[in-house]
Amino acid sequence: MTAQHKKPEIGFIGIGVMGRSMASHLLEDGYGLSVFNRTKAKAEDLLAGGAVWCEAPGEAASRADIVITMVGYPRDVEEVYFGAEGILASCRSGSLLVDMTTSSPELAERINDKAKSKGCTALDAPVSGGDIGAREAKLSIMVGGEAEAFERMLPVFQVMGKNIVYQGKAGSGQHCKMANQIAIASTMMGVCESIRYAEEAGLDPQTVLRSIESGAAGSWSLSNLAPRMINGDFEPGFFVKHFIKDMNIALESAEKLGLEARGLALARSLYEELAGEEGGEDRGTQALYTLYR
Amino acid sequence: MTAQHKKPEIGFIGIGVMGRSMASHLLEDGYGLSVFNRTKAKAEDLLAGGAVWCEAPGEAASRADIVITMVGYPRDVEEVYFGAEGILASCRSGSLLVDMTTSSPELAERINDKAKSKGCTALDAPVSGGDIGAREAKLSIMVGGEAEAFERMLPVFQVMGKNIVYQGKAGSGQHCKMANQIAIASTMMGVCESIRYAEEAGLDPQTVLRSIESGAAGSWSLSNLAPRMINGDFEPGFFVKHFIKDMNIALESAEKLGLEARGLALARSLYEELAGEEGGEDRGTQALYTLYR
Repeated sequence: MTAQHKKPEIGFIGIGVMGRSMASHLLEDGYGLSVFNRTKAKAEDLLAGGAVWCEAPGEAASRADIVITMVGYPRDVEEVYFGAEGILASCRSGSLLVDMTTSSPELAERINDKAKSKGCTALDAPVSGGDIGAREAKLSIMVGGEAEAFERMLPVFQVMGKNIVYQGKAGSGQHCKMANQIAIASTMMGVCESIRYAEEAGLDPQTVLRSIESGAAGSWSLSNLAPRMINGDFEPGFFVKHFIKDMNIALESAEKLGLEARGLALARSLYEELAGEEGGEDRGTQALYTLYR
Repeated sequence: MTAQHKKPEIGFIGIGVMGRSMASHLLEDGYGLSVFNRTKAKAEDLLAGGAVWCEAPGEAASRADIVITMVGYPRDVEEVYFGAEGILASCRSGSLLVDMTTSSPELAERINDKAKSKGCTALDAPVSGGDIGAREAKLSIMVGGEAEAFERMLPVFQVMGKNIVYQGKAGSGQHCKMANQIAIASTMMGVCESIRYAEEAGLDPQTVLRSIESGAAGSWSLSNLAPRMINGDFEPGFFVKHFIKDMNIALESAEKLGLEARGLALARSLYEELAGEEGGEDRGTQALYTLYR
């Protein structure tokens, strides 16, 4: 036996665009990986790289010290944790369950409670930074749960992200991500309306950007998404349907907290209108611009 | 006679917080200055520095090669240009009339037409950057009018600002400023709702900022105004009443252009609600936050 610590075994559930990049960084860093995904084909690169295939979330959990989930919607989170072949039915006592999906704070609290009753610990740790952030291991990770569990998980987070911040008790990571999405929602209306106004007024929107993006009107969305709007590029960086999912969670959560978020409510209604158009929900969020034409 | 060009004489009308800084930069740079302001006391520093006091806008215009106006509302712009003792009644043929007030694009076009009929040239050149930008001569200046007039004015603009961009024909500077305000309006709702959500969810909003301000939720408003909201500092950088003025112009102008700017309309209605509270209109725009409490 050497003095070197053995790295914990990781179960990784959800090999989508984000999950694939995140899991491959872990594999490259020397972590043993057990993976599950609804569609096995998406895991093939990882399996070729040494990851072990599992037939259910519970199987991956039973082999792991740390279980990471990165799935789609809260209903998927619910299923992989609480389902018959789910994580909570099979996780080892002492293991750490980390949901990195953007999901509801309330669900994060429920997972945390149930994990405790199994002798496990849970963290909610949604990310921002998108597919590029995942690929470049530069995700921003917002973490809720027990502080000790955060410390234990930190070296693993550092393989996938850069700006890793502990936000507080269970659910706080999800709440922080909601605060993030709430800020984006109204900003997107402002960016679309600003650019469409400039165009209708006969100005060159690129020249307008030169005037306004470095000042008080500046935002990530203005600098990164307005140029795509102007160029008619509506390819998804971040899908309309996923943004609507997030806004739904945020609105529901805001309502529970007694907060009337009118900008957010308007933004969601506009995005729903957009999603109702053919192909609308599979476009990038910058397609909101088309609604103003 | 030397080869050195004599600097043009400048008439400066409107010595408020912004105008005072701008005019003093011109004076320090060696321009001859004739000034008018409704309240003479505000011009005293400039007069002590060598500026000449005038009893009316027209008197300042009659002494100047270049007339700069920096007043409050479109009705003030209207008065200083079209009033009985206004600029257009007394300006010298060949002079350059530059309105740097944030005002309506339509009024800028009317000034331009009338100036032409007097053998003069007009520019609309509103700014962003606020009192600090004015003090540090770092204003962003958005310019509409004839390109030759822009070139002639550029050395003067450079004494007051940094990011000086020609946007197109008469009215384009004002339109660009409206695009700027439109982007800010909805972003402000997003920032307030995000911070209030974080607080209601029991998170530390400063810690939330650490997670979100450098990513896709980032904006000038989030980085610069959210900290003031959190600290309960609602002192005016930019007055609520002036922002409402700008949003009114923007909405009227958007309507004429056939653009339904729903985020902007909602933001204006919220700011009007805020202005209806005691002292509300004299607070800084970040006071929108208080409406969500």
